[in-house]
Amino acid sequence: MLAKKAEDFRTVWLHPDDESIVQIIDQRLLPHKFQIHDLRSWEDGVLAISDMIVRGAPLIGATAAWSLYLAARSPDQAGDELQRAADALLRSRPTAVNLRWAVERVLTAVGGAADDDLVSVTRTEAEAICDEDIAISRGIGDHGLRLIQDIAAKKNGAPVNILTHCNAGALATINWGTATAPIYFAHEAGIKVHVWVDETRPRNQGSQLTAWELAANKVPHTLIVDNAGGHLMQHGMVDIVITGTDRTTRCGDVANKIGTYLKALAANDNDIPFYVALPSTTIDWQSRDGVAEIPIETRDPTEVTHLYGIYNGEMVSVRTTAPDTPVSNYAFDVTPARLVTGLITERGICAASEDGLLGLFPERKNTR
Amino acid sequence: MLAKKAEDFRTVWLHPDDESIVQIIDQRLLPHKFQIHDLRSWEDGVLAISDMIVRGAPLIGATAAWSLYLAARSPDQAGDELQRAADALLRSRPTAVNLRWAVERVLTAVGGAADDDLVSVTRTEAEAICDEDIAISRGIGDHGLRLIQDIAAKKNGAPVNILTHCNAGALATINWGTATAPIYFAHEAGIKVHVWVDETRPRNQGSQLTAWELAANKVPHTLIVDNAGGHLMQHGMVDIVITGTDRTTRCGDVANKIGTYLKALAANDNDIPFYVALPSTTIDWQSRDGVAEIPIETRDPTEVTHLYGIYNGEMVSVRTTAPDTPVSNYAFDVTPARLVTGLITERGICAASEDGLLGLFPERKNTR
Repeated sequence: MLAKKAEDFRTVWLHPDDESIVQIIDQRLLPHKFQIHDLRSWEDGVLAISDMIVRGAPLIGATAAWSLYLAARSPDQAGDELQRAADALLRSRPTAVNLRWAVERVLTAVGGAADDDLVSVTRTEAEAICDEDIAISRGIGDHGLRLIQDIAAKKNGAPVNILTHCNAGALATINWGTATAPIYFAHEAGIKVHVWVDETRPRNQGSQLTAWELAANKVPHTLIVDNAGGHLMQHGMVDIVITGTDRTTRCGDVANKIGTYLKALAANDNDIPFYVALPSTTIDWQSRDGVAEIPIETRDPTEVTHLYGIYNGEMVSVRTTAPDTPVSNYAFDVTPARLVTGLITERGICAASEDGLLGLFPERKNTR
Repeated sequence: MLAKKAEDFRTVWLHPDDESIVQIIDQRLLPHKFQIHDLRSWEDGVLAISDMIVRGAPLIGATAAWSLYLAARSPDQAGDELQRAADALLRSRPTAVNLRWAVERVLTAVGGAADDDLVSVTRTEAEAICDEDIAISRGIGDHGLRLIQDIAAKKNGAPVNILTHCNAGALATINWGTATAPIYFAHEAGIKVHVWVDETRPRNQGSQLTAWELAANKVPHTLIVDNAGGHLMQHGMVDIVITGTDRTTRCGDVANKIGTYLKALAANDNDIPFYVALPSTTIDWQSRDGVAEIPIETRDPTEVTHLYGIYNGEMVSVRTTAPDTPVSNYAFDVTPARLVTGLITERGICAASEDGLLGLFPERKNTR
């Protein structure tokens, strides 16, 4: 989805000349360096997910699927190796629900296959997951576009101001993104949009990833600190909030990057629509009460105390705090469904409620 | 208020051996370096305020008063020089209301004085402002202590968890702080407290100043990103929020560091008391509707795109974004009175309303 490469761009792919290598973008280095990173084993895939070389719920799932393909290629007994890889992948990030979904899908496909077919079955499944993810993003884009069109119709040519948190963009999926898909589709349709990009501390996915991909696609945007959104909303400078999610409960509670809940409160307080864009693979049909049930990952304190930046042309890590400052680093929070105006899925837009979700996904009525 | 120096510590003072120099701490360098900065002219004072070598509403006021003392010492015709200095000081930071209060107070004192007395009058007034500020912080500490005692009484020996935003600490005043005074008083009284310190992007006054002074005073604390407070509140990990303010309207709306409004919304959503500590000098008796009336300063985009940190033992500035990312940098937001549980002033605690404030400050009934 970058620059002129919209249709070709992908965030994870098989090396064109060497089928033993899966390639990803090292997202830790953006926006300072665009560097391809090779995965040569399933252990490389686990590390890519836990170290956040890749991140974003859909891309985590796809990378896990490709990691199982690498496990299937292992010269060791492939069956055990697949299970070992699956176990390690499931432990690599606890909050993203479609990590589990992708791993289980590949294992199910492998279930009936002969040992000789493991490589081709895992590859087919990983490719299908990626192709389907793009189709899902396109569906979200089509449905979300209508929300932006409706706002644009009332703005007399002034840009539609959209606030987003973290990166639920092309870089979080295979292409197009979830929260960004409606924005890209609106931009391509000639609707004037302007995106307020939350910095998204501590890992700065907003300032480093969302700002980068919006710039690459020439979508007007302005970076703000996470603290600023409430002020903008109080002053009529935000028309709609659209974020992604790592896990949505059956009742519409939404786990997303830490700080999303604060933006939802501010949107609610200022009567601004707050939408969450999600592939249905991020719905956890077994859970209901997000605050009580969704495990919230805590991450390394150095994500808060240190950060990367450019100094004298070099990318260096600096410590911004005193060396011994105690830190807590929660990665996600849960936005209760009552604060969510609607969910934008690949099948359409629905209320953030069990009834809303089951209206779009009636086949889940009996999932418990 | 640092370590064993509680009573002696001040954030602005006259050089002990040279009355032509006013000294301050260069707060831009904390927590990495403790460095004294000399003000030799009123222009140095303006720069110290606009460049945020000093910050915090009370300390800005005191530094402005001392800058007028430096203007009075100028070999130029002192009267005009005082007015020039006053005009420049008033322009140096637009949001802090006690900057204006301090400048007007010194000018009023100077009004009836003979030219020969300007130096002694301005010095006396600057010293009085500092002494009174300490008395005010002590008053806030005494009143706020009772809130913490009441919570502690219900916690069976578990620490009282206090969340604060930005630095309304000793470093923001002359000593003791506003939001921190109740915390320091509780800590000295042997009450177990634990402070959640918001990082406070973009200038990181929480991670760099509040964490530093709490550590110096051995008060248990944990640094979090600004995004985390809502999650902590949802999970019962915050007992009370106490912040400072740069300007409070007659009706109890509170302008404070950008992001304060988001924490007030989260406190409100989780039935957690949200208090604002303030010297009455930060009350703007002429304004009523904070969102509509209080001017919100926008600052340099580089505060968002760049930051200081330690690299190879050196303090360096790094750029964390792409070089051409567009940025908006609003410094404050307004928390509506309806979200404020109470105001802690030097005269007592009151509701965040005109009636509440006039109950404590009845002499202001006819101020319009």
